[in-house]
Amino acid sequence: LLDLLLHERSFARLAGEFKARAADIRPVLMDDTGSFKTADGEPIEGMPHIDLGYGTQDSYFSPAVMTFMQAILSAEKLHWFQSSAAGIEHPILQAIRNRADRYTSAHEQSPAIAEWVLWAGLDWFQGGAVRRKAQSEKVWHRGEFRELADTHWVIVGFGSIGRACAQRLRMLGAKVTGVRRTAGEDPDADAMLQPEDLLTALPQADSVVMCCPMTAETEGMANAEFFQAMKTDALFVNVGRGLLVDEDELLAGLAEGRPAHAALDVTAVEPLPEESGLWQHPSVTLTAHIAAFTERSARRSDGVFVENLDHFLAGEPLRNLIHKEQES
Amino acid sequence: LLDLLLHERSFARLAGEFKARAADIRPVLMDDTGSFKTADGEPIEGMPHIDLGYGTQDSYFSPAVMTFMQAILSAEKLHWFQSSAAGIEHPILQAIRNRADRYTSAHEQSPAIAEWVLWAGLDWFQGGAVRRKAQSEKVWHRGEFRELADTHWVIVGFGSIGRACAQRLRMLGAKVTGVRRTAGEDPDADAMLQPEDLLTALPQADSVVMCCPMTAETEGMANAEFFQAMKTDALFVNVGRGLLVDEDELLAGLAEGRPAHAALDVTAVEPLPEESGLWQHPSVTLTAHIAAFTERSARRSDGVFVENLDHFLAGEPLRNLIHKEQES
Repeated sequence: LLDLLLHERSFARLAGEFKARAADIRPVLMDDTGSFKTADGEPIEGMPHIDLGYGTQDSYFSPAVMTFMQAILSAEKLHWFQSSAAGIEHPILQAIRNRADRYTSAHEQSPAIAEWVLWAGLDWFQGGAVRRKAQSEKVWHRGEFRELADTHWVIVGFGSIGRACAQRLRMLGAKVTGVRRTAGEDPDADAMLQPEDLLTALPQADSVVMCCPMTAETEGMANAEFFQAMKTDALFVNVGRGLLVDEDELLAGLAEGRPAHAALDVTAVEPLPEESGLWQHPSVTLTAHIAAFTERSARRSDGVFVENLDHFLAGEPLRNLIHKEQES
Repeated sequence: LLDLLLHERSFARLAGEFKARAADIRPVLMDDTGSFKTADGEPIEGMPHIDLGYGTQDSYFSPAVMTFMQAILSAEKLHWFQSSAAGIEHPILQAIRNRADRYTSAHEQSPAIAEWVLWAGLDWFQGGAVRRKAQSEKVWHRGEFRELADTHWVIVGFGSIGRACAQRLRMLGAKVTGVRRTAGEDPDADAMLQPEDLLTALPQADSVVMCCPMTAETEGMANAEFFQAMKTDALFVNVGRGLLVDEDELLAGLAEGRPAHAALDVTAVEPLPEESGLWQHPSVTLTAHIAAFTERSARRSDGVFVENLDHFLAGEPLRNLIHKEQES
């Protein structure tokens, strides 16, 4: 009988699955106060014994996230850790990857993130802010707007998120240029470029979406030169990682209208410090790293977890295995 | 040589087409002050001689719209009038239809209107207002949102606008129930209903879109009974005609949370009177009858005009002909 740690809200969605596997797996629940308990609600004193772990938005964004991580990292032997996140940029996730016999990721957040990108894109091209101001001032404002079908998007990073964005944008008639390290065409893009050609594509883009992994190569990729290459009426979107963007240069670019607007779900430091100029900037749409934060997103990740749990119990290979040496 | 009246902004898009047909057609331009001139900018004194007319958003929403209509209606013989609008509910358009030898409409506004509906839908299901409030107050608010892919839409009216909405919503994974008078299935809907069954569908809808024509049967269709049948977390959208909705009952419904939110591009009286409670209602998104107001929309309608112009000159049947007796 193996002990598996997960957040109590994740457990609430999965109680039936655990019941069906009660002979093999004993869930250990953590709540938002950092207390541990059994599935029956019996309190567990001190650090619980852990063999396996399932990390989700429920635990990563819990006030007790550090207690969760501590419990995982202090396991004597961590056989397997499943994360609902795609990336392992965070040093603690890297530590877990290095400690766990097996570490698996999930890529089930893309559909939600792609909808967030559509939300941000439509609000920009339709002039949402202008409309809301007119309404609040009782002005019958007949402003023209721009159809998404009439726009060209450059998507930096063509993994599951970039592809999910591209598919939806192209279904709506937009043109998409994808950027990724691997050369060659892609059925979900009108054109594909490699990162070294990015600056030649930016002047054509009505919108640029950052959704590549954070690596030594991509850190600070959206810098002064990047923003200066953008059109003056273009939208800049970041749903990747905050550190892909030089935020000082973004603010300097916005002051000059390149880009005209930024829609950011991620920032270099999260939560964004109160003194940041991004908070109340009239040309910034900011959300709190929630672009994947939907019920369906959680359930899709749960599906990967349950699938891998059964593989694990059957001694079969796991899906989305991340090797210790490999970059995300 | 036939004289064709159109707004100078419409002419600006079509100058090349007129030049190519200069042997047959002489454009007569009206500007926003209600002055008439030739294509060369020569002023025309008094009411101009008119044989043909092309009415677009440029003329319908011009401050000089009544002068445009007067010029059309005072034509001794009006051979053909092309409108960029789908509907002919407006009494003046009906008068033109009855006066013109031939009256043709256009249905090219649907793609733009469908994008407006997506904008309104995404902003509601993603909690745009909550996000903007949090940002303005520097609150790192990690609120969950709902994917469009997880929603069920009831679309009342399944003409070109309803279909354009349905296609995009279903591409994004949403479920669509269409409502129209004609019985039977439709490839662009998961289910189809007739108007008499509408009240049975409303309790399942996460969003209801009004986009049917205004007729004696549909006037005031969205009434107290209609709103009471809606879910408490649902969105109500009107991109049809303002008079489809009983606005007093909508305000009463919003007070009870049925619907939870209304997104309106049209109102019973336009421009909306200053005293209307819709203007600054926290649960209302209001725009000024601009859901079709895009450059592409204008160009698509111009395409229908040019096509019909060539049919007219060749003595061929016109596309989208509306007969005098027929309801729109």
